[in-house]
Amino acid sequence: MEAEIIAVGSEMLASDRLDTNSLYLTGELNNLGIEVVRKSVIGDDRDRLAGAVRDALSRSQILIVSGGLGPTEDDVTREAVAQALQRKLIYSEEIAEALEKRFAQARRKMAEVNRRQAFVIEGAEVLPNDRGTAPGLWLEEPGAVAMLLPGPPHEIKAMFERQCLPRLARIAPRFAIRTLSLRVAGMGESDLDELIAPVYKKYTNPVTTILAGNGEIQVHFRARCATPEEAEALLAEVAAPVELLLGDRVFSRNGDSVEAVVGGLLRKANATLAVAESCTGGMLGERVTSVPGSSAYFKGGFITYTEAMKIEMLGVSPETIERFGAVSRETAEAMAAGARRRTDATYGIAITGVAGPDAAAGPNGAVVAPGTVYIAVADASGTHISHRQFLGERQRVRIFSSALALDALRKRILGRE
Amino acid sequence: MEAEIIAVGSEMLASDRLDTNSLYLTGELNNLGIEVVRKSVIGDDRDRLAGAVRDALSRSQILIVSGGLGPTEDDVTREAVAQALQRKLIYSEEIAEALEKRFAQARRKMAEVNRRQAFVIEGAEVLPNDRGTAPGLWLEEPGAVAMLLPGPPHEIKAMFERQCLPRLARIAPRFAIRTLSLRVAGMGESDLDELIAPVYKKYTNPVTTILAGNGEIQVHFRARCATPEEAEALLAEVAAPVELLLGDRVFSRNGDSVEAVVGGLLRKANATLAVAESCTGGMLGERVTSVPGSSAYFKGGFITYTEAMKIEMLGVSPETIERFGAVSRETAEAMAAGARRRTDATYGIAITGVAGPDAAAGPNGAVVAPGTVYIAVADASGTHISHRQFLGERQRVRIFSSALALDALRKRILGRE
Repeated sequence: MEAEIIAVGSEMLASDRLDTNSLYLTGELNNLGIEVVRKSVIGDDRDRLAGAVRDALSRSQILIVSGGLGPTEDDVTREAVAQALQRKLIYSEEIAEALEKRFAQARRKMAEVNRRQAFVIEGAEVLPNDRGTAPGLWLEEPGAVAMLLPGPPHEIKAMFERQCLPRLARIAPRFAIRTLSLRVAGMGESDLDELIAPVYKKYTNPVTTILAGNGEIQVHFRARCATPEEAEALLAEVAAPVELLLGDRVFSRNGDSVEAVVGGLLRKANATLAVAESCTGGMLGERVTSVPGSSAYFKGGFITYTEAMKIEMLGVSPETIERFGAVSRETAEAMAAGARRRTDATYGIAITGVAGPDAAAGPNGAVVAPGTVYIAVADASGTHISHRQFLGERQRVRIFSSALALDALRKRILGRE
Repeated sequence: MEAEIIAVGSEMLASDRLDTNSLYLTGELNNLGIEVVRKSVIGDDRDRLAGAVRDALSRSQILIVSGGLGPTEDDVTREAVAQALQRKLIYSEEIAEALEKRFAQARRKMAEVNRRQAFVIEGAEVLPNDRGTAPGLWLEEPGAVAMLLPGPPHEIKAMFERQCLPRLARIAPRFAIRTLSLRVAGMGESDLDELIAPVYKKYTNPVTTILAGNGEIQVHFRARCATPEEAEALLAEVAAPVELLLGDRVFSRNGDSVEAVVGGLLRKANATLAVAESCTGGMLGERVTSVPGSSAYFKGGFITYTEAMKIEMLGVSPETIERFGAVSRETAEAMAAGARRRTDATYGIAITGVAGPDAAAGPNGAVVAPGTVYIAVADASGTHISHRQFLGERQRVRIFSSALALDALRKRILGRE
């Protein structure tokens, strides 16, 4: 069973506002085993909306139209849907009276324009609105149902939950949907796909989606079966071999970020952390401390943006910087060791690199290209250093560097470098 | 001239993700005098997408399709659009070579699957992608143009700006649109609106939009006239009195962030900066260093997440912390002074506070509520301290705190506290 959602309102076609009601509606529909196959935003234009409604009902079994039920001239949903279904609009004395009563309770006089909200599409069931003036409408056509719901989020949620869910439950298929999301670090999107495609390609259910961004990859599985047990079993059948292939590169399977995962590992090990940052300028510390309760394991950090700061704050030797450069394996190692030593933390992480856009000067007249990054993770047993040449602009290099550093720490704690 | 935007990707039909690229695209199209009349999200389904593309091109003169150009099997945009336009897909040796070169530069082997990105729709112009592997395509049909652009925000923005805008400018209607955006710190949205509404409410052109978020408010004006001169004049007529009312609270009128503005002021004054952060955990340093070239004025920072770190790294006296607490006017002052002293910077900024969600322990059994923040700005002439009680969750408190700290520095440099 497939659904479409149309959000009505010219303000959602501007450059500063999105339709967010569809997220809530999608979650609720998915829980009933109904897929959302298309979402649209249409302005306050009657003909255009009528066309979109006609098209949607010819394709899908369920249509939700949100917004455009207000009292003003630019609220065109009732008229547009009546036009699309070739039905009449009928004035409801009952709704008009309820509206008047509502205004009287608030000790306000009802404006004449509010009477527009008392029009009902012929044959529709009226869905009462406890939280606003616009009633909703439930319409049945051969092979399809349409719901017209108000736009304000607290109104649409209450109405959908109380009025639409019970009606939908009667017609929805008895499906169960289960999802699983693996978050993966340390490999590129196409390499990952090449590795796991032979497993997931054999299945159209669960649906597998691969998303890359912010220095990590998310692999989503979504299984849809007759019972929750079957969905769980199917998910396990596909996800388990994929997890096996990805191995240690999977850092979470419950949606947790890498900083949250690292936080959990540090807590469990009763260990502490300090950071030393150059090109990321504080981003690594910011990510670590974005996790509530991080003060339990995070001691602090050093943002050493100059060579002098690396020497004074972290005790990197001037000879190391002169000989190998501030962006080097050796400096990263000394920074991580210094951060650890000066804070008495269990682990020290250091990032030094060139975020760009310009290249930097290296030792002996060498040039260090933008995107060059060294990451060091130090503990009592020694220091592990990784080197990357990232592509892209300044902020991307910084995001990837901090993600990689957090993942390097994760592997270090797990003893799996 | 009317445009439609189709975002492609099943992940945007789930309950947790929206298409945000359309906001940027809409802003740019509007600047050319092109209205967006419909936005849709379609899953990774070839036939459904082909149908949507056909419908859109039959209705509107401009179609932008974002996403689905990746290398994997679920990236169906190329095939779907070729199907919709009844054109062939042709393998481009040139693109394949460019892809191979890109991978070689990053010292990675190109996966075989990436060759899918070398297919071009017959008759299309290829739009190079500086920031990723997926090239875009520009297609012309009788009475309509279509652009296929990559999904990742930093890729689509760069490609649209460099490749699509110049092409669109040639076919767009000859309206002159001029915009002005004031960025304002240090006041609430409703207070600001009450102050400036008497000016802008008198005009429907320019359109005035007020957006609040991230610890600042943006006031946008958009004038649309027959000539650039008329649009400029109209903009000045409305914006000048608004700027006068807002005074020093306007920190930029060209779109620059407060960190960029502060960077410019520091450069001009030949001054340097160091930061000391507690609850923001590196966010302040991250913002300062997000500006390219910030190494000219940023010395570094201290992320002092524990009391011991505040004492050792910044020289805050244990008595100050014991008597007034780590979250106090006195500790903030000592942190800022310490950051300045230890780095020899012209200015030192300190942030200490409780980001939440939990309250913190204060001195003598007192409880410090989440959202309590002290910010200190120190220079040779002394220290200025501000105190705020922010509402909202952890990340909001941190964002507002770093924004306020940057604005406090701006005012200090300008001598306007």
